[in-house]
Amino acid sequence: MKNTMLILVLFLLSSCKGNKDKQGTDIPLIPVFTELQNKAKAIFGVLPGWVDSPISPITDEKVQLGKTLYFDPVLSKNGTQSCNTCHNLSTYGVDNKSFSPGDAEGTIGVRNSPSTLNAALHTAQFWDGRAKTLEEQAGKPILNPIEMGIPDEKFAIERLKNSEKYRKMFASAFPEDKDPVNWNNLTIAIGAFERKLITPSRFDKYIAGDDKAITDKEKQGLQDFIDVGCITCHTGPALGGNSFQKFGVYKEYWKETKSAKIDAGKSDISKNDAEKYMFKVPSLRNIAKTAPYFHDGSVKDLKEAIRIMGKIQLDKELTPDQVDNIFAFFGSLTGELNPELAKAPQYP
Amino acid sequence: MKNTMLILVLFLLSSCKGNKDKQGTDIPLIPVFTELQNKAKAIFGVLPGWVDSPISPITDEKVQLGKTLYFDPVLSKNGTQSCNTCHNLSTYGVDNKSFSPGDAEGTIGVRNSPSTLNAALHTAQFWDGRAKTLEEQAGKPILNPIEMGIPDEKFAIERLKNSEKYRKMFASAFPEDKDPVNWNNLTIAIGAFERKLITPSRFDKYIAGDDKAITDKEKQGLQDFIDVGCITCHTGPALGGNSFQKFGVYKEYWKETKSAKIDAGKSDISKNDAEKYMFKVPSLRNIAKTAPYFHDGSVKDLKEAIRIMGKIQLDKELTPDQVDNIFAFFGSLTGELNPELAKAPQYP
Repeated sequence: MKNTMLILVLFLLSSCKGNKDKQGTDIPLIPVFTELQNKAKAIFGVLPGWVDSPISPITDEKVQLGKTLYFDPVLSKNGTQSCNTCHNLSTYGVDNKSFSPGDAEGTIGVRNSPSTLNAALHTAQFWDGRAKTLEEQAGKPILNPIEMGIPDEKFAIERLKNSEKYRKMFASAFPEDKDPVNWNNLTIAIGAFERKLITPSRFDKYIAGDDKAITDKEKQGLQDFIDVGCITCHTGPALGGNSFQKFGVYKEYWKETKSAKIDAGKSDISKNDAEKYMFKVPSLRNIAKTAPYFHDGSVKDLKEAIRIMGKIQLDKELTPDQVDNIFAFFGSLTGELNPELAKAPQYP
Repeated sequence: MKNTMLILVLFLLSSCKGNKDKQGTDIPLIPVFTELQNKAKAIFGVLPGWVDSPISPITDEKVQLGKTLYFDPVLSKNGTQSCNTCHNLSTYGVDNKSFSPGDAEGTIGVRNSPSTLNAALHTAQFWDGRAKTLEEQAGKPILNPIEMGIPDEKFAIERLKNSEKYRKMFASAFPEDKDPVNWNNLTIAIGAFERKLITPSRFDKYIAGDDKAITDKEKQGLQDFIDVGCITCHTGPALGGNSFQKFGVYKEYWKETKSAKIDAGKSDISKNDAEKYMFKVPSLRNIAKTAPYFHDGSVKDLKEAIRIMGKIQLDKELTPDQVDNIFAFFGSLTGELNPELAKAPQYP
């Protein structure tokens, strides 16, 4: 009798909506994992809720300050743009342009602005990985003459010191610092904010045990994505972002992407020819929303980008069905940002 | 008549032994490239004669000093081992052990000693890439308690300062320094020497135009190596060494390698779970001579290592023929070090 009751209770519980796991993902109370779910979980791992900083512990005050700075055009010389201009949180952390215009008239970037969403999971920042951390990255576009154009660190810090709001916010984020409004703290705060920009999606519900969270076509796409060999590089919870790869293993990339300019990638920095045409493998989180594609935004259509990747990275002519399925699977990676993080700060 | 003469001269020239290109590789005077040669050259690029340092220009004096230091057990606390003990230049830059014993009794390393040959071509040093340059790498085993065990930089520098030979050599390698015997210069000198440790092989003659430099079986192995997908990661002139990859894309590696211990690779340093089980893709130069294989030297047999790589990285059961051919191709990557560099310095 006791056992029957227990089974009944378990049955009733299992048909409830379910609860949330540590990552805030809804999961059924008693998930039964399919082989594909287990495989995907083993390959990609679980998306964390945020990524801790090795430099400075994340606090709410740092995140709030970082968010305020992220949205503030005070960090561009002419006040025309903020971090959010090119990495717009209401459009999945990108501006959907091949190259982004800068603060000064007529300037334009040389590589496609990558999304800040889930960038905390990346091994390094920028397409060529020249910044090791988000904090190191955060300061560079501000000082880049063709981006935000601030002449030097001192210039930016003077501006912020003139603001009572920032003096208070820096002091509260870095209570132990005598002179808290400084460049290092600025990058730490923006980094702290960006470390929270993680976007769980239906795919995460799926690997957490909810077999119904993605469609059969999306499952087939996931299976194709695994079988075709995409996971050699697009691995980890961001499905990429954790390695560098030669773009164009089997064919010179520009012959397929029709890129206007041949960009040598990592070797431009390292001067090491062994790194020619190497770029960071981009994350595929929110990929359906972040066109145009590749380091130079040379391809607008996601299906075309999938086809090209099969051809030049894997030497495979993907069938139209494979392309369709993988395209569908990518839809399951479109995630949601905590709305509190995405919303621009309100000004009085 | 002039044309006939010209053709005759060209014919005679083309049947001569040939001359040397910039890399010192013998090439026929008028090579005719096959499709496979062109493909291989495009994929891997040309092996350079050495790799310049971004920190300090390479001079003969630095190389000589670096070589002397490389072979000198003065750099281990108890004087039992030099760099050359674990990275033995007479055995292709390795000691052919799974893990290397250290200077103090009973200590043993935790990862397989990688070859110093062609390491100058790598993106970063160590299996987890924790040193960006050879210079940064060079100092670390000296100070590692389970390797050469020198307590600190000062200890090593004091020893070297006590030697007239080293005082002279440092002064001559760094003529502009007032106090040339210092840690930074020590690492620069060892780095300068290691930047020269490049081993051209028959494969380089092949892609330089000598179709007869490698056998038909080796060519088939090269073709299989390309077709199977190994080149996704083993690219660049070192056939690897320029990216990090998850070891065990399709299967947990230790289930195939029978590793005694599960090593999480890069994530142990970065604390980023997205880098779990990621290691530097090893170079395949001299791979036939550098057993045992993988970061933990867990597999002794090269054919078995090839089979495992197909299975866990590419989800492919390679046929015995494919394994044999790729194994044969690897033989063409066994190269030669300039004998002047390989020979231990002579002591009076």
